[in-house]
Amino acid sequence: MTPILHEYAPSGNCYKIRLTAALTGQSIERRGYDIMAGETRTANFLASVNANGRIPVLQIGDRFLPESNAACFYLADGTALVPDDAFERADMLRWMFWEQYNHEPNIATVRFWLSLVGEDNLDAVQRALLPGKRAAGAAALRLMNDHLAERDWFVGDAPSLADLCLFAYTHVAEEGGFALTPVPAVRAWIARVEQIQGYIPITA
Amino acid sequence: MTPILHEYAPSGNCYKIRLTAALTGQSIERRGYDIMAGETRTANFLASVNANGRIPVLQIGDRFLPESNAACFYLADGTALVPDDAFERADMLRWMFWEQYNHEPNIATVRFWLSLVGEDNLDAVQRALLPGKRAAGAAALRLMNDHLAERDWFVGDAPSLADLCLFAYTHVAEEGGFALTPVPAVRAWIARVEQIQGYIPITA
Repeated sequence: MTPILHEYAPSGNCYKIRLTAALTGQSIERRGYDIMAGETRTANFLASVNANGRIPVLQIGDRFLPESNAACFYLADGTALVPDDAFERADMLRWMFWEQYNHEPNIATVRFWLSLVGEDNLDAVQRALLPGKRAAGAAALRLMNDHLAERDWFVGDAPSLADLCLFAYTHVAEEGGFALTPVPAVRAWIARVEQIQGYIPITA
Repeated sequence: MTPILHEYAPSGNCYKIRLTAALTGQSIERRGYDIMAGETRTANFLASVNANGRIPVLQIGDRFLPESNAACFYLADGTALVPDDAFERADMLRWMFWEQYNHEPNIATVRFWLSLVGEDNLDAVQRALLPGKRAAGAAALRLMNDHLAERDWFVGDAPSLADLCLFAYTHVAEEGGFALTPVPAVRAWIARVEQIQGYIPITA
């Protein structure tokens, strides 16, 4: 049964899942939605795909799995991308939760606002949030840089889902105006991820 | 080796971990920090416990595991609180990621602002965010209510970490001004969680 990815292709959250499928040698079908046109907020989408009105959602038969990092976990569970060691497995999830709490709401959101919505189209609340999100996104990149200064991968000594989930929005952070020049260990890690056997770019 | 929980007791994120330990029959040592006095932003805390400056952190020997839901996963991995079925295991994580993205930043943050910081002490950005967070928190409770209308537990037919992680801030949502009267299925589920063998309250 081939999983179906309900997605919006430029989203890093959707790309994570395609990258995980590629690196674990699994095929997925792709079904695109125009989020700018509200295609994930229709009554049909809310009733049948995700009551939360968001993509990505990974469909397995007649079951639907929202939340990008959960979908990656489903595809990678039992592969080398999920560490065998209990502490390392939890530590991988630690970085994935950190990504959704401290990284994505800043780096992905600012990228979306600036490169897809357009700065001139932001509302008053979004404008008020922009400085804080820029500072928090830069702080997230510095925290990653400090962590990577002494190691090649986020957890243990091999790539795991933590790397893939963090890579998705980090490698396109400049599209949100976040400079990668000050974080050389992050740039070196990006180059390492791109060298993993089976890697596919976000545009694939 | 007894795990050490670095915590701030009223935090639901810290309580989740104590509840998971209690329900799996594990002892933990507790070490408290006054977050209002900046005790998790000291140079020593940042260097030795969590570079992200946040609690909870679960310490296992000389290793530190930040992120509440990752710490719960570490304690519950291999127990009945983590489903054996691969889809259900990922679906449990789906709700845990949803909790950190859609629930905690609204329900927990507004509770913190109103009951611990005080509405009069909020800054201009926090005031601008308050209406959106109130609406998003209420929407999160409605989504939970719809999901629970036809089932007793979030995933499968038994309590899992998804229930514990969502319970932590939901059962004290009224401290943030979120009404539970309109979500009867959530109230019934709260009562079920409180009946689980070994349950401890947030004040324990």
